[in-house]
Amino acid sequence: MRLYLLPKTFNGQASLEIKGKDYVYLTKVLRLKEKQNITGRDRDGRLWDLRIEKISKDSCLLSAQSAETAQARTDALPQTGPEKTIILYQCLPKGRKTDDIIKKATEAGVRDIVLVKSRNCVADLEGKEEARLDRYDAMVTEAIQQSGSMVPTKVSGVIDIKDIPDDFERRASEENRLGLVLHQSKIPGQNNDLVQCLKNFDGAVAIVVGPEGGLEESECQTLIDRSFKAVLLKTNILRCETASIYAIGAVQTILESSCQ
Amino acid sequence: MRLYLLPKTFNGQASLEIKGKDYVYLTKVLRLKEKQNITGRDRDGRLWDLRIEKISKDSCLLSAQSAETAQARTDALPQTGPEKTIILYQCLPKGRKTDDIIKKATEAGVRDIVLVKSRNCVADLEGKEEARLDRYDAMVTEAIQQSGSMVPTKVSGVIDIKDIPDDFERRASEENRLGLVLHQSKIPGQNNDLVQCLKNFDGAVAIVVGPEGGLEESECQTLIDRSFKAVLLKTNILRCETASIYAIGAVQTILESSCQ
Repeated sequence: MRLYLLPKTFNGQASLEIKGKDYVYLTKVLRLKEKQNITGRDRDGRLWDLRIEKISKDSCLLSAQSAETAQARTDALPQTGPEKTIILYQCLPKGRKTDDIIKKATEAGVRDIVLVKSRNCVADLEGKEEARLDRYDAMVTEAIQQSGSMVPTKVSGVIDIKDIPDDFERRASEENRLGLVLHQSKIPGQNNDLVQCLKNFDGAVAIVVGPEGGLEESECQTLIDRSFKAVLLKTNILRCETASIYAIGAVQTILESSCQ
Repeated sequence: MRLYLLPKTFNGQASLEIKGKDYVYLTKVLRLKEKQNITGRDRDGRLWDLRIEKISKDSCLLSAQSAETAQARTDALPQTGPEKTIILYQCLPKGRKTDDIIKKATEAGVRDIVLVKSRNCVADLEGKEEARLDRYDAMVTEAIQQSGSMVPTKVSGVIDIKDIPDDFERRASEENRLGLVLHQSKIPGQNNDLVQCLKNFDGAVAIVVGPEGGLEESECQTLIDRSFKAVLLKTNILRCETASIYAIGAVQTILESSCQ
């Protein structure tokens, strides 16, 4: 059972016409026929019972009815999604690696993916940020639909690495906060064990992942000075596109565990 | 500091000539010059101090000296790699996804990647297993070098899903064993918490990851009957190429944690 992410223009009306990419998704990818139902989600996270009323050559007509009941939610999603907030601060990697990172992080239900500029970043979005964020937005929509994620993931940035602590405070102002920096060399007194860090913690977690060349020690230190904890994962040197989803898997699993 | 994985033909001789891809790797990728040193690892996992004696047009001459001391090991690898054995049983996904899974699993230090055929597998390597395994072998070599992994990762298969328990027993015959199956729907009485499963466990862990269509309930049951534990991760529905590295991150981090 997949989820259809309703267009940004949807505002709760009883019926809506779907064209373009979304039309293709519903009729060609999901192969829905007239009179079939699908669960939709609007941009505020509310669920809707949708019904394909009519399929034309290049559009289809849906009827929408609010489905915000526990029963509808359970039927739509056999999988129990994550409940805790994770924010990924991803230093810009080269080329298409960002795409892969965004897709995987969205599937896992990371709430915010914030792109970051740090000293060893080779890539730069300057001047093309807007176009790129539009492209990322389309990827996020696809990944949300595919994974049935209930988390309204958003990609933003680019911000400077030194602005991460303020950004994190703003994004999770009403929650307990825990900032984590993944680094690759030993920083004296700062080799925290991830399980230990997350033990009994309940709140929002930020994960900072470096670019290809890693984070500079001074960059880590600036974050540590603002209460971030440096974590040395007991694994090999991971490429940055591996490190982010590896870390998300570890953090989310421990954070969501019922037996901490 | 990167590691150079010595050719299969290396048998401890004092000097060796390097040609082809490895020559390109050493002189163009790592940009090593004459008289420079690099740490090498042979196929049995032993470390060697290598020195570039001479660089010619399409080959280079290395001298090799055993470096199997704790000091050499520490110098070569600032990162503390994983110590526990993980075996990934990966049901064959479509197309090039296997490449991505193998690269990331190798980086993380998975010891064995065993390709598996299950009911919902669309892909099939029949007749081209040998060529494909050769290609995977080249990827593994590259990923080991890049990640400085001390784990001699090997890719094998394809085996049938029902043969996983016997295969696991054979591969980890002298260790405590814990088999885990990742599944996506709730199986009554079998929704184990990963942190709970791994608590105080010391030994080899097998992770079974399904193909695009997921594992059938009967396939899970066959594994459960042979003492595997079914784990329902508290996340969204992940694509199989996301699920494997996500799970490896979670399992390895908890398994290697000093504060269980």
